[in-house]
Amino acid sequence: MNTTAKNSTRVSHQQLSDFIRAAFLSQGLSEADATEVGTLMADADLQGSDGHGVIRLPQYIRRIRAGGINIHPQIRVERERASMAIVNGDNGMGHLVVSRAVQLAISKARETGVAWVGTRFSNHAGPASLYARMPLQHDMIGIYFAVGNANHLPPWGGMDMLLSTNPIAAAVPAGEEPALVLDMATTVAAYGKVKAKAKRGEMMPEGWMIDRKGNALLDPKRADEGFLLPIGGHKGYGLALMVGVLAGTLGGAAMGREVIDFNADHKSVTNTGQAILVLDLKAFAELDPFKASVDKLIRDIRGSERLPGVERIWLPGEQSHERRVRYLREGIPVADGVLAELKTLASEIGLPPLV
Amino acid sequence: MNTTAKNSTRVSHQQLSDFIRAAFLSQGLSEADATEVGTLMADADLQGSDGHGVIRLPQYIRRIRAGGINIHPQIRVERERASMAIVNGDNGMGHLVVSRAVQLAISKARETGVAWVGTRFSNHAGPASLYARMPLQHDMIGIYFAVGNANHLPPWGGMDMLLSTNPIAAAVPAGEEPALVLDMATTVAAYGKVKAKAKRGEMMPEGWMIDRKGNALLDPKRADEGFLLPIGGHKGYGLALMVGVLAGTLGGAAMGREVIDFNADHKSVTNTGQAILVLDLKAFAELDPFKASVDKLIRDIRGSERLPGVERIWLPGEQSHERRVRYLREGIPVADGVLAELKTLASEIGLPPLV
Repeated sequence: MNTTAKNSTRVSHQQLSDFIRAAFLSQGLSEADATEVGTLMADADLQGSDGHGVIRLPQYIRRIRAGGINIHPQIRVERERASMAIVNGDNGMGHLVVSRAVQLAISKARETGVAWVGTRFSNHAGPASLYARMPLQHDMIGIYFAVGNANHLPPWGGMDMLLSTNPIAAAVPAGEEPALVLDMATTVAAYGKVKAKAKRGEMMPEGWMIDRKGNALLDPKRADEGFLLPIGGHKGYGLALMVGVLAGTLGGAAMGREVIDFNADHKSVTNTGQAILVLDLKAFAELDPFKASVDKLIRDIRGSERLPGVERIWLPGEQSHERRVRYLREGIPVADGVLAELKTLASEIGLPPLV
Repeated sequence: MNTTAKNSTRVSHQQLSDFIRAAFLSQGLSEADATEVGTLMADADLQGSDGHGVIRLPQYIRRIRAGGINIHPQIRVERERASMAIVNGDNGMGHLVVSRAVQLAISKARETGVAWVGTRFSNHAGPASLYARMPLQHDMIGIYFAVGNANHLPPWGGMDMLLSTNPIAAAVPAGEEPALVLDMATTVAAYGKVKAKAKRGEMMPEGWMIDRKGNALLDPKRADEGFLLPIGGHKGYGLALMVGVLAGTLGGAAMGREVIDFNADHKSVTNTGQAILVLDLKAFAELDPFKASVDKLIRDIRGSERLPGVERIWLPGEQSHERRVRYLREGIPVADGVLAELKTLASEIGLPPLV
């Protein structure tokens, strides 16, 4: 999702979050909710998750206007034990629902060492790593699972798209080094990457998709004739299924045939499910030696011998960390195509344009 | 690891576990410990995890005789909170250490809904799914992570084998259907599969290994000139790293450069780390509707449209479930090559042969 846009305009994180905030305020969200969603969506762009940031704003607003999102949700805890909860999002914006779940998991983990909070009646909430990273500032580990909002993946050997790209994210604090942050779909390519290839008129590499005969599908413009492939074949299928069961079925959220394609259907309640697991480092280890051992591991890996032609070995989350630092200084590049869509949106809802 | 041995002899689960038990008794393990390890190792063969069952017995005995295993370990809880613990295995057999960790996690999850127990100073414990499955009989979900016992995986873009095949397993109860049980290495192929190809004189498919120039390595006899590949490229690298941090670093067990190659070194303390996460279903949902929704998901997937030439769509754990049922009835096939090694072992330690 991290396309380096050549034709783009840089905006500050503040400009971007203010614009998104204003858009949600115009649709009737409360000040607090609009501010929270605006900040989280701008945070997505800030780390280069540009397929999950402001680019989604027109779609979210369309869904709100179609009645597909509850703008005044009563987000509530439906089941609860010392180390777990299920949060019912009342069909509110996913960002609000998942943030609430993560905050609850953090406070529970502080008491018992470990906590798992699942959501139901949530919605699309942006990049998985946003939520896995939230516990970091409390010296906690975050592990996040979600059911994707459209099924593009059949079971291994099948053609019926019963599964989504169900992502996994995990964030582990380091000491002097940036935190380890993994954020991955369980398919070889996320569907957004296929769409980006189509937009640029490029072919896909073998291994991303197959057609209904099981042959490699290389032309992204023909994507609707085929399916995404899971990572590691049957392994990624199993992983996508388990992530879906944990984030969806376990909390009473949609999974399998119940999943709504939120790109095509703006109105039906998606009943999206996510789950966050939080581990409080202070329960597991002495903080400083633990962080030092993560730093050492990072440096061992970064400094290890490279294959011919490889310039640098990256750690998970390192590229998005560097982007965050650079974009805070230089501004976040927003592609011209996205700016044009945002301009149309702004005029429709009576706001000044972003730039 | 599930080779269908043509030249094999069938033994009952009881015969197999008795033989293993006797071998460990002969080395000084207590009755209770020898029985537990014997049962778990025979359970591995019973589900077809034949790379992790009795085939490992000669290696385990060699390690005990070299002083690399503590035969009278004081397995103890080193850190503890309501929902977590770190178990120090005192360098005992991994099967004993991990079983203890799982039992503790089950009792904690019963109280708080969720529990995470990590191990340190543990050892190789057999197939991951053995432990992820233990919570099933208590209507709980098990999720298991482990640091592999030899590094065969470099970081993405690298040549220095700092990572292992670090497996993930997850088991979710169903109703009338067999439980969903995923058990996967984070590499495309487990190292045992490479060894099996070499033994059979077969070439490996592209995608299993690369050589030090980054080219595909197809000849399994040249395996030591190259490295395993992670599933999904950089994704599997990130996943293997995170699993290692969670199962190893977090509990103070070996990770990265600290990992001992237990195939080559029979004496050094491996300080193996594993972690089990247990979720008590009763905290999350009403049991019957939950199980019915898992059954429905399983049947939707099994009955879904297949690619041309595909005879059946399998669920994770379904093949090992069917094998378990069949082998209980017909006996467990033990390959002639393995039987020969066990015969040599038996005569060395003064036991009657298995068959």
